[in-house]
Amino acid sequence: MKLASLKHGRDGILVVVSRTLEICIEAGEIAPTMQAALDNWDAAAPKLQKLYQALNDGSIDARPFNEAACASPLPRAYQWADGSAYVNHVELVRKARGAAIPDSFWEEPLMYQGGSDAFLDPRGDIEIEDTAWGIDMEGEIAVITGDVPMGVSADDAGSHIRLLMLVNDVSLRNLIPGELGKGFGFFQSKPSSAFSPVAVTPDELGEAWQGNKVHLPLKVDYNGQPFGRADAGVDMTFDFARLVAHAAKSRPLGAGTIIGSGTVSNKLDGGPGKPVSAGGVGYSCIAEMRMIETIDQGKPETQFMSFGDTVRIWMEDADGKSIFGAIDQKVSQYNPPR
Amino acid sequence: MKLASLKHGRDGILVVVSRTLEICIEAGEIAPTMQAALDNWDAAAPKLQKLYQALNDGSIDARPFNEAACASPLPRAYQWADGSAYVNHVELVRKARGAAIPDSFWEEPLMYQGGSDAFLDPRGDIEIEDTAWGIDMEGEIAVITGDVPMGVSADDAGSHIRLLMLVNDVSLRNLIPGELGKGFGFFQSKPSSAFSPVAVTPDELGEAWQGNKVHLPLKVDYNGQPFGRADAGVDMTFDFARLVAHAAKSRPLGAGTIIGSGTVSNKLDGGPGKPVSAGGVGYSCIAEMRMIETIDQGKPETQFMSFGDTVRIWMEDADGKSIFGAIDQKVSQYNPPR
Repeated sequence: MKLASLKHGRDGILVVVSRTLEICIEAGEIAPTMQAALDNWDAAAPKLQKLYQALNDGSIDARPFNEAACASPLPRAYQWADGSAYVNHVELVRKARGAAIPDSFWEEPLMYQGGSDAFLDPRGDIEIEDTAWGIDMEGEIAVITGDVPMGVSADDAGSHIRLLMLVNDVSLRNLIPGELGKGFGFFQSKPSSAFSPVAVTPDELGEAWQGNKVHLPLKVDYNGQPFGRADAGVDMTFDFARLVAHAAKSRPLGAGTIIGSGTVSNKLDGGPGKPVSAGGVGYSCIAEMRMIETIDQGKPETQFMSFGDTVRIWMEDADGKSIFGAIDQKVSQYNPPR
Repeated sequence: MKLASLKHGRDGILVVVSRTLEICIEAGEIAPTMQAALDNWDAAAPKLQKLYQALNDGSIDARPFNEAACASPLPRAYQWADGSAYVNHVELVRKARGAAIPDSFWEEPLMYQGGSDAFLDPRGDIEIEDTAWGIDMEGEIAVITGDVPMGVSADDAGSHIRLLMLVNDVSLRNLIPGELGKGFGFFQSKPSSAFSPVAVTPDELGEAWQGNKVHLPLKVDYNGQPFGRADAGVDMTFDFARLVAHAAKSRPLGAGTIIGSGTVSNKLDGGPGKPVSAGGVGYSCIAEMRMIETIDQGKPETQFMSFGDTVRIWMEDADGKSIFGAIDQKVSQYNPPR
């Protein structure tokens, strides 16, 4: 089934959305919010599923669904942790500065704890104070889990995945080196993220959900031009079950935990990929394009985002229909209250 | 005023607690949970304050307050970010391995994003799978904020502090070097934290709340013996307003954000401190004791925590009365579901 949160207050209003994303219905009698549904999933999910069925059958009164009226599925969450499952992406970052990656990066997922108290709307502006911070998008997939016991095995972790979404993990590239140099991870360099308007249960993906991976291209357009078409099922070194198990090694995960894949990235013939304009699958972030330029030409050419630049992130099923709705955002200038 | 969350479901039941911590009353008609009060603070706080007054006056029916019946004030939160305001502590960590700290550490707070989806109860066991991970406590102070606008100045940030608590920021010392070496910050090395049974508004501290710091000793007992008596107002390089402003540089903070001070640590005559047993103020974590031993004797002597070890963290006012109630926890072995 497909679920969304219409913008309302801090936590939105839970709606069930039809498979075609054309109509929706409030699910308040089952659960007022997405978090409430996740807190009580075993009881809520079968009822939500019935509503979903009725919606798809046309056997229930519904209203038009408007992606622009949506908050992120969890407008705020108790946890957002982002992995780096496409190790190719990490390898390229290092290669661009002449460094190799440790072998351990291929054996154990990298993961950082992100801020989860204030996500952006899927169609909300990316408000940033200063373009000198190096504004970038990162197109990713994420799962939302139920309650996950501490120490869960990777074999069992997949059974705790409740929903899937797309992510724009906004990054401030020029703030990253200073923060990572201190060893305490990202903080100021990772402002609020945005998620797709719609979250879907894994069964919605049919055969594209295999081995706890999403085997479909992630579509990223930058300023209206195709920028990324990388397949999320290719070159994903750690599947979502591995990522969930990594997160739960020393603590339980509460229902509504969001675990991200990291930037989706594909190799080409064992090496770096090519831009979409050159016949490749392109990139899911600008940094990767800049790395390739650095490797090829000695220095990056593409600039990070400026005020007014736009990014659109979506995914289509085998019939070309949008699965999650689209993240579609513009960068705008933020004036701090000083 | 003083507030607590009685254990109940995922988010507890909000109660107002008397100044003496002897009695309490449910605040459900004003706000069912601590988060609900914080979400609607301007409306809720005056009503809660009235209840608090009546409770202290004895002009309202109340029930006995039991610290052991409490969850952490926010049993789960949308954000937990922990600073390292006592740079002395960081300097000692480095010194023990023969390294100096960069000058920037004295100018810009270190801060990491912590997991906030599943806090421990103040009297709950610290369940850990393996003592080889190097189990340690960290005694800290934390503030809970209201909504904080992105880019807030340090001058204005203090006005967004709503409540204060104590923290046991449980740390797995032997997992830290590997994680920090990867640059993505703490994750598995920071299992669930615990907070004091009671959260209090800053005015409860009277003159001990000055310059956005708490000027009182943080009391830490380890296995029933005095271990730490460091003054939280001394050697705090960055006050809480600075820490909140640091967290809000590139994103707004949602109501209910918890910002920690990092391990409370005092110098002695410009150098490392002494154990309580040797007449010093001691330490708020075992790692610091081990650093001093390493500096003095070439190697650490005190071991990290084992199953059965206990830690008690509390703070007293000028009259020797407990302000926040006590965190009192035992380390116990966790058996993962495999």
